[in-house]
Amino acid sequence: MPDFPPAEFELRLEHVQAAMHTAGLDALFFTTEPEMRYFTGFRTLFWQSPTRPWFLIVPARSKPVAIIPQIGAELMRQTWLEDIRTWSAPDEKDDGVSLLADALGAYKSVGMMRGRETSLRMPLGDFERVLARLPSTGFKDATALVQGVMQVKSAAEIAKLAQICAIASKAFAAAPALFHEGQPIKESFRKFKLELLGTGADDVPYLVGGAGQGGYTDVISPPGSRPLAVGDVLMLDTGATLDGYFCDFDRNFAIGHACDKVKRAYQTLHRAVDAALAAARPGASCARLFATMAEVIDQEGNDVGRMGHGLGTQLTESPSIVGFDHSILKAGMVMTLEPCMVIEGQKIMVHEENIVIENGPPRLLSTRAPAEIPVIG
Amino acid sequence: MPDFPPAEFELRLEHVQAAMHTAGLDALFFTTEPEMRYFTGFRTLFWQSPTRPWFLIVPARSKPVAIIPQIGAELMRQTWLEDIRTWSAPDEKDDGVSLLADALGAYKSVGMMRGRETSLRMPLGDFERVLARLPSTGFKDATALVQGVMQVKSAAEIAKLAQICAIASKAFAAAPALFHEGQPIKESFRKFKLELLGTGADDVPYLVGGAGQGGYTDVISPPGSRPLAVGDVLMLDTGATLDGYFCDFDRNFAIGHACDKVKRAYQTLHRAVDAALAAARPGASCARLFATMAEVIDQEGNDVGRMGHGLGTQLTESPSIVGFDHSILKAGMVMTLEPCMVIEGQKIMVHEENIVIENGPPRLLSTRAPAEIPVIG
Repeated sequence: MPDFPPAEFELRLEHVQAAMHTAGLDALFFTTEPEMRYFTGFRTLFWQSPTRPWFLIVPARSKPVAIIPQIGAELMRQTWLEDIRTWSAPDEKDDGVSLLADALGAYKSVGMMRGRETSLRMPLGDFERVLARLPSTGFKDATALVQGVMQVKSAAEIAKLAQICAIASKAFAAAPALFHEGQPIKESFRKFKLELLGTGADDVPYLVGGAGQGGYTDVISPPGSRPLAVGDVLMLDTGATLDGYFCDFDRNFAIGHACDKVKRAYQTLHRAVDAALAAARPGASCARLFATMAEVIDQEGNDVGRMGHGLGTQLTESPSIVGFDHSILKAGMVMTLEPCMVIEGQKIMVHEENIVIENGPPRLLSTRAPAEIPVIG
Repeated sequence: MPDFPPAEFELRLEHVQAAMHTAGLDALFFTTEPEMRYFTGFRTLFWQSPTRPWFLIVPARSKPVAIIPQIGAELMRQTWLEDIRTWSAPDEKDDGVSLLADALGAYKSVGMMRGRETSLRMPLGDFERVLARLPSTGFKDATALVQGVMQVKSAAEIAKLAQICAIASKAFAAAPALFHEGQPIKESFRKFKLELLGTGADDVPYLVGGAGQGGYTDVISPPGSRPLAVGDVLMLDTGATLDGYFCDFDRNFAIGHACDKVKRAYQTLHRAVDAALAAARPGASCARLFATMAEVIDQEGNDVGRMGHGLGTQLTESPSIVGFDHSILKAGMVMTLEPCMVIEGQKIMVHEENIVIENGPPRLLSTRAPAEIPVIG
């Protein structure tokens, strides 16, 4: 049962083929899940298994061609695709290489994902075997072209993103009942994950955070077993999913008491988001949005790398809200705003909201966090 | 807080360095999570974000060197590593390429993962930049070498795998209370996921299955909304995790009633597992184990590809229980046994158990399924 009607995929194909025409590409070649799902609707958790490679070719003038292990044929036949070629994988001698090379051999100029935020999800040795069999095929970098198409979400995609953001907002609203002093952080995380699933999330592939006196030191760790203490700042950052679409935002809570430094950091981050909401318009650049938030934060030695990114079927997508990314915002882009403060020494605070760029002010998909840090537990 | 004491990682390093010595490799180079976690203990859900590449070098005569984005430094410093090199990622011009090329430049012969079940988790363009800067470095395929070391689990790893298998076994035991006629399959899946988390699983990254009259047609689909009906065979296949270690097994249930064909298929799969348990000994090959199960099933047109695989920090790992895999079983290997039957037409049934190879009979990590298909709901 595909997540969208065929018309959605026809439109996606139309958009990317227009860009391919301009770039002079005869076909696109994909090995990774987000692009395969985007152009086919093929959604399965089976990507968790690294055993089998999956290939998709998007020709410049016809529908996508799937070259996949036999085990996925039944599911792929439920999508809008017609040309599905399969082999019994894993195969000892030829794990899809001949099928792939034969199909790509029809094209002179093939675009693939070679740039930022991409990977090659097939054995490097097999990719080299394909290259060796196609000495006159040009494999070009189509990263920017493909990302440019995928960045602008359809109304149907935005509806799914809005729904998972609403689910996570509702789960965060239950925080005062979920978290309390003396609770091991690992237990706080478990309760929050159950709350997300109970509220309607399909999955919680990403839930990280931290807790510490007057701030935390790290934003990517799994939870430890230390009990929450008065004066802790507790942060949970979640990427929950619905039909494979992610939310990605966090919330900060003070346990029992918030000191002045924590209160001020929180307020500053809130004002940085205010400024970003006022600046996030079609035509503005990501670099400009970064500068807008950096001006409010105005802090030396604050080296967070970036302050937000695209959001969709991946937890983080292009573009990046960072000084060097001059991508222009367009209506339909779904973005995170993620300013960060250094509180003192190694302690930090990160705040995050999810928005969709619209003509006029952006629309918040996450229910905006309160202007003052909530004291709970 | 690493999941294992330093002695565990010292032993892993010792094993791989012995193999490197034999193979004449000066260093190993990794871009993917399982190997980075195996040699360092670095565990984070942050791999969900495709934005940043992460690199690890394992020299032949010293401790591993991490070359990672600054955002991971704090967590990496909690591992047993000493040499941690970082850059502020994402970077516009140089996303770790110079740091990586400088580090790899110290070695003549570098092993990397180029073979079956591997991928390159960094931009292909950046990898080519590294290659261009190191024209005299040999990049060899070390897939078999590395997989050979990682296949044999330590007692500490087996303890974690046993624990998550016990959790999933307990959750499956609750099936009669969870699933019933009229329940949309999507709801059955949600309830089972909550049961797994409530029973102690950290996460449920993989939960697929199917339900249909007299069998199902597909084993990798997300659940649909059709209600369970009398005569359905319901199958749930789960990869739940504890400290990042997976279980991977399924269970079949008949809703209300099981027809004779379903009963017989189930019995045959049970006997195939009996035969595999009798044959799974150190010194036996995967191909032999495959043949043992295939003999019991004895069915034409049954093209499942393989009937089991390794299990660890990935849902599926090498080796494969398939006719062409002549890997020799060793004590400490954790494996799935996964025979499959065609019932009629496109209907199939898959059964799966998890075992650890020991001197003598293997030890079941999953609580063995009953010999007759349970009728519930």
